[in-house]
Amino acid sequence: MLGVVIPLEDSKNKQASVKPLVDLTKADMERVNQLILSKAGSDVQMIPEVANHLISSGGKRLRPMLTLASAAMFGFTGDAHVKLATSVEFMHTATLLHDDVVDESDLRRGKSTARMIWGNQASVLVGDFLLGQAFRMMVDVGSLEALDVLSTAASVIAEGEVLQLSVAKNMETTEDDYLSVIRAKTAALFAAAAEVGPIVAKTDKASRNALKSYGMNLGLAFQLVDDVLDYGGKAADLGKNVGDDFREGKITLPVILSYRRGTADERSFWREAIEGGKSDDQNLEKALGLITRYGGLSDTIARAQHYGTIARDALAPLPESPWKAALLEVIDFCIERVS
Amino acid sequence: MLGVVIPLEDSKNKQASVKPLVDLTKADMERVNQLILSKAGSDVQMIPEVANHLISSGGKRLRPMLTLASAAMFGFTGDAHVKLATSVEFMHTATLLHDDVVDESDLRRGKSTARMIWGNQASVLVGDFLLGQAFRMMVDVGSLEALDVLSTAASVIAEGEVLQLSVAKNMETTEDDYLSVIRAKTAALFAAAAEVGPIVAKTDKASRNALKSYGMNLGLAFQLVDDVLDYGGKAADLGKNVGDDFREGKITLPVILSYRRGTADERSFWREAIEGGKSDDQNLEKALGLITRYGGLSDTIARAQHYGTIARDALAPLPESPWKAALLEVIDFCIERVS
Repeated sequence: MLGVVIPLEDSKNKQASVKPLVDLTKADMERVNQLILSKAGSDVQMIPEVANHLISSGGKRLRPMLTLASAAMFGFTGDAHVKLATSVEFMHTATLLHDDVVDESDLRRGKSTARMIWGNQASVLVGDFLLGQAFRMMVDVGSLEALDVLSTAASVIAEGEVLQLSVAKNMETTEDDYLSVIRAKTAALFAAAAEVGPIVAKTDKASRNALKSYGMNLGLAFQLVDDVLDYGGKAADLGKNVGDDFREGKITLPVILSYRRGTADERSFWREAIEGGKSDDQNLEKALGLITRYGGLSDTIARAQHYGTIARDALAPLPESPWKAALLEVIDFCIERVS
Repeated sequence: MLGVVIPLEDSKNKQASVKPLVDLTKADMERVNQLILSKAGSDVQMIPEVANHLISSGGKRLRPMLTLASAAMFGFTGDAHVKLATSVEFMHTATLLHDDVVDESDLRRGKSTARMIWGNQASVLVGDFLLGQAFRMMVDVGSLEALDVLSTAASVIAEGEVLQLSVAKNMETTEDDYLSVIRAKTAALFAAAAEVGPIVAKTDKASRNALKSYGMNLGLAFQLVDDVLDYGGKAADLGKNVGDDFREGKITLPVILSYRRGTADERSFWREAIEGGKSDDQNLEKALGLITRYGGLSDTIARAQHYGTIARDALAPLPESPWKAALLEVIDFCIERVS
């Protein structure tokens, strides 16, 4: 594939892109992809079928790229970062498989979810298998520090998902409550993915903290932008329909802001829609109107920019390098997805 | 509690009992129970609620006792075995939570399953949380060998559960196929539970293999006896109804033997019952008759005794001790549950 030029993408000037990160991690990502195929393999045929359905469904693989970059930027060569990047991707894939069961989702990225094809049972169990394989790869790397970071992330992610269940359909959820949820369910894995790089590269504690903070705040920005995209923007990129979160009664920041800023009547509307399940297309239209009136999307983007700035400052003390530049550009790329 | 005599149980002579193992591990099991409560805790209220529902539901806690005994019999003192025993129990609990979702079970040990009270979502996610906590405790112990054994077991268990899905309702399942399933889904955790004891006790490789083999074969015997109990015997002890496996279309060894030994007509009956879902009470009666005619239960018990003997011989070269005696008695206890 060397030398293939994709002229249209490159000709957009000044648009932040994930491409520098993709290019820098290209060789290592090929090793990750090999390892994914090998470790999702099993004599039990259903396992690679289900795993590959999701693995090949066109995610950006941002998380494993973070691990690769955050090790390579400190001069690490070897294979520990490849194994840990694969572990991170498996943890993410396992979470998606379980999420689809929990959310009763029919579609992910425009394709039928595994649970629609193979059933809830296979989704739960193949998720468990991938999680087990993730831990085996971490153990194989042999770094107790990396194991500590990633096993803690596994607990925190699950805890965040349960917290999300507890606040589900409760319109009194505050922005702080919501931040606790996304910090745990999304940002913790970004943080762990970025932190294990410096760990295997055996760099200093300050660099490790810098990458951890970068990952955490990038994860928050990423999730907030995802929430905005669900109410508009380039929904096709996500493979989901506008308003999926609304129809599922999911409370995200655009809704929280619009509810709190609304009149008593408007708050009744939100309660009926989100808590009462009155989420037909007409109500979605009304919800979109209220979100626009109260700046629900623009202010959620502003929050994302806030966390993006923290991520940027976290990396500031590190020496300049193509790696650092690529990681910084990813912050803008994540936020500009919505603009 | 020292000196408390339980006259009725002790007066039964020659009946194998789990009591010597319970007595020997009593002090350490109290530490395990404390750790269970502490590590199943979370600010997210639903987590301890769901976890404690299952944890307090009266299982025998055989697996953590195996870990404690298999460390203490080599003179180990400290707390690594307590943490690993708790990890093993959490892995088991997580499996049960996910199993109930996969099997759509309403009852476990005579109580409503967590999924009936809190929903499938909470069962999946709290299971994930307990698995994460299990790994954190293993990492805390810091033995990469123990981590290797237990993370491999986690993958194998999940693989076994998916294999069970694949063979589900297929009457052509052979005894060998079935053994592959229960070796993975049940016996692998017994084996890992018994193997990590000698690992933290830093004993020789031969002792480690002895305990692993003991655990594996004990686990096979245990599961086969469970399968027999489902078709009769002391079903109340299990908190399940006679014939639950039959009604769920589960293929277990009594069914496999009776199907293979039956006439063409009888095989048609089994296919309609198990593959076709005709599993009403009248058909259960007929199934029980066929199982009895073809020695399905007695020969499954004979298989359990076969694995019990292997477990016994695995421990034979180890020096005599109260610990060894207690572990040997547990083999008979598991098999005599059915007699």
